Amino acid sequence: MASRAKPLRIGIAGLGTVGSGVLALLARDPDRFGPLLTVAGVSARSRSVKRAVDISPYAWFDDPVEMAESDDIDVLVELIGGSDGPAKRAVEVALARGAHVVTANKALLAEHGADLAALAEAQGASLAFEAAVGGGMPVVKAVRESLAAADIQSISGILNGTCNFLLTEMERSGRSYEEVLAEAQRLGYAEADPSFDVGGIDAAHKITLLAAIAFSTPPDFSLAEIEGVEGVTLLDIQMAQRLGYRIKLLAKAERLGQRVRIRVHPALVGLAHPLASVGGALNAALVDADPIGQLSFVGRGAGSGPTAVAVLADLLDIVEGRGGPPFGRPHAALRPLLAAKPAEIAGKYYLRLLVSDRAGVIAAVSNALATAGVSIESFLQSPTADGSVVPIVLTTRTCPRPALDAAVAAIARLDDLTEPPRVFPVEDTYS
Amino acid sequence: MASRAKPLRIGIAGLGTVGSGVLALLARDPDRFGPLLTVAGVSARSRSVKRAVDISPYAWFDDPVEMAESDDIDVLVELIGGSDGPAKRAVEVALARGAHVVTANKALLAEHGADLAALAEAQGASLAFEAAVGGGMPVVKAVRESLAAADIQSISGILNGTCNFLLTEMERSGRSYEEVLAEAQRLGYAEADPSFDVGGIDAAHKITLLAAIAFSTPPDFSLAEIEGVEGVTLLDIQMAQRLGYRIKLLAKAERLGQRVRIRVHPALVGLAHPLASVGGALNAALVDADPIGQLSFVGRGAGSGPTAVAVLADLLDIVEGRGGPPFGRPHAALRPLLAAKPAEIAGKYYLRLLVSDRAGVIAAVSNALATAGVSIESFLQSPTADGSVVPIVLTTRTCPRPALDAAVAAIARLDDLTEPPRVFPVEDTYS
Repeated sequence: MASRAKPLRIGIAGLGTVGSGVLALLARDPDRFGPLLTVAGVSARSRSVKRAVDISPYAWFDDPVEMAESDDIDVLVELIGGSDGPAKRAVEVALARGAHVVTANKALLAEHGADLAALAEAQGASLAFEAAVGGGMPVVKAVRESLAAADIQSISGILNGTCNFLLTEMERSGRSYEEVLAEAQRLGYAEADPSFDVGGIDAAHKITLLAAIAFSTPPDFSLAEIEGVEGVTLLDIQMAQRLGYRIKLLAKAERLGQRVRIRVHPALVGLAHPLASVGGALNAALVDADPIGQLSFVGRGAGSGPTAVAVLADLLDIVEGRGGPPFGRPHAALRPLLAAKPAEIAGKYYLRLLVSDRAGVIAAVSNALATAGVSIESFLQSPTADGSVVPIVLTTRTCPRPALDAAVAAIARLDDLTEPPRVFPVEDTYS
Repeated sequence: MASRAKPLRIGIAGLGTVGSGVLALLARDPDRFGPLLTVAGVSARSRSVKRAVDISPYAWFDDPVEMAESDDIDVLVELIGGSDGPAKRAVEVALARGAHVVTANKALLAEHGADLAALAEAQGASLAFEAAVGGGMPVVKAVRESLAAADIQSISGILNGTCNFLLTEMERSGRSYEEVLAEAQRLGYAEADPSFDVGGIDAAHKITLLAAIAFSTPPDFSLAEIEGVEGVTLLDIQMAQRLGYRIKLLAKAERLGQRVRIRVHPALVGLAHPLASVGGALNAALVDADPIGQLSFVGRGAGSGPTAVAVLADLLDIVEGRGGPPFGRPHAALRPLLAAKPAEIAGKYYLRLLVSDRAGVIAAVSNALATAGVSIESFLQSPTADGSVVPIVLTTRTCPRPALDAAVAAIARLDDLTEPPRVFPVEDTYS
């Protein structure tokens, strides 16, 4: 056990929702936390902006990098965000002088995690990031430590609460993507510029980090295939529902032989799939590993309280002297992996077409699929209020992705389509 | 990070399912585990019994206590089981000389955990027990470390796979408790003497340990209220189903003001409750904590593979130098808690009667409940094949437990009952 003679001196860079949550949590139980942790500095863009917590007792730094350089700080708590700029410089400066870093910055670690982990290891410093993935759902530590001896085959998750709220709310209320997004922005569930969330980037950063730990590989954001929720229409949600599915933004990392596949995209999940019932702003992670089988986590994925608890968990690990390599294995033991080739990818798919003339198209679509060797599992067409454009929806049986792509390319050339075909993968069951 | 110059020397006491699983896991990846861990001794009741793994390469000890005393062992892996006897002596001997202990022994820790934790702390040794609760579901570490800064209000769980299998299988197949238990014993899902499992003792040991960590209190098995599944009949399962519930063996630890309540009993859980869908041999744990909200874990709760992964996780923590007090806080900071008084307990209840004469009894039952101030929420009576004995089932609205007990005592005195009334608590929603 670590000596507890002197409290660990932390410097908090970034005083938004999470930073304020950390200060509030520390202030709630000074008898307990006071002897362990002391706030030796804070830094944010503005000192005077109105905050939920009073920051006047803490030493102020205009520049987070200057705070990271200060010998008065044992741990930099980096809550600025962004893969580059002051967050990156502050983290580098802190690690370079052997100070520990606790961060919620998924972008920084997904882009530069390998170099930062090497730096931390060389300096004997901790680089901890529970708060970067899943908020109050402690999946980073679980995968890194609790499953360290297991052979992880896949991790599937719902890792972005904003997208999950949008999709859940569209289904619940029958409103369009645009309407629900506008409401989420009013409620503060979506940023003014929501592109990182709705574009799938945030979820891709997170699954990149989980993949690195699960597969003992340096995080490589360039491996991630990314599609956001912007293209999911109410029509898709309703059609999926009629077929027995719910649309979720799936983040998945899986081993395919010696390669890996890391991806974020809307997917149709069967109603019996554990992810189907994860609604609203919840996050979930399903791990499939040998020899433990399946393991799932569900919790609140964001917000001040849950994320602050994750930051504190990392800080208390440092207090207790609990360390170890940031991605579970020493830097030298992390081996880069290659992305699976398209020919190695197979699955079931949902295909949605909007057509002006039904009769001719159905034959042509069936023909294109048959020519590519893709079998149809279910087929759905129904009248719409506006009779001029007719939706045609089908799901395929499991087929190689290149075969599907060939069929879709042929279908996209048909004259009667009013917009390009829409394709989402189908996750029938959790396996 | 800990020095990895020399592998940690482990001695495994107990070579049943879990011990063999640990050896198999180590043998599967010698390049990885060899430099970290070496098996310096094994001990079991019989050296020559047929096992899934070859133990001839390992140093043999007839006596696990002798192995625990050996200076050739850095970590005792105690997989013998039992709250007293050789398991306890071996653990005490190991800790007393400063060796670490990793154990799956929930009985030992629930009964003697406070003393053993004090001993470990005094010697600077680890006492780790992830494998004691939830098998491959890493809830011990999550509660101890990831939620260390959260204020835990309650933990509800399904913590005994045998009981969950029995209840799930009775509902699925419509067979009696006795038939399903006999099948579970044939399949190896239940012990020849199943009393620890079906009597709720095993689940009570586990929830006692989780309560100790969650509430920073010494484990106190005497606080646990325990009722097993032996009294659950197929009739109860079917009646519950008709009322929109499923019967589960619930293990729950909760704060009630300055007191706690720790209990294991069959409960009716609403079909929308997260525990309702946890079937078969799965385990689950639901944590409610401030300020993170609700967090859930589902995984395989037993078996060679999952439990061996938990043992290895504890061993790799020791390899990496990750320690800390066994129950999260230093021994001196653990404060004993008192059990809630009956008057502080309230809830909804299921009441099942078997009566010979319906008409008279219904009036008398209603009267007894009304006199005690207990309101009826739903009432169910239905003909049975054997017309001579009629089941009457009802659920109450939320009422104080003493009021219910008074009503049930009055009802039990009625002449027309063919057996004593059966009472199970109802957990409507997860809150």
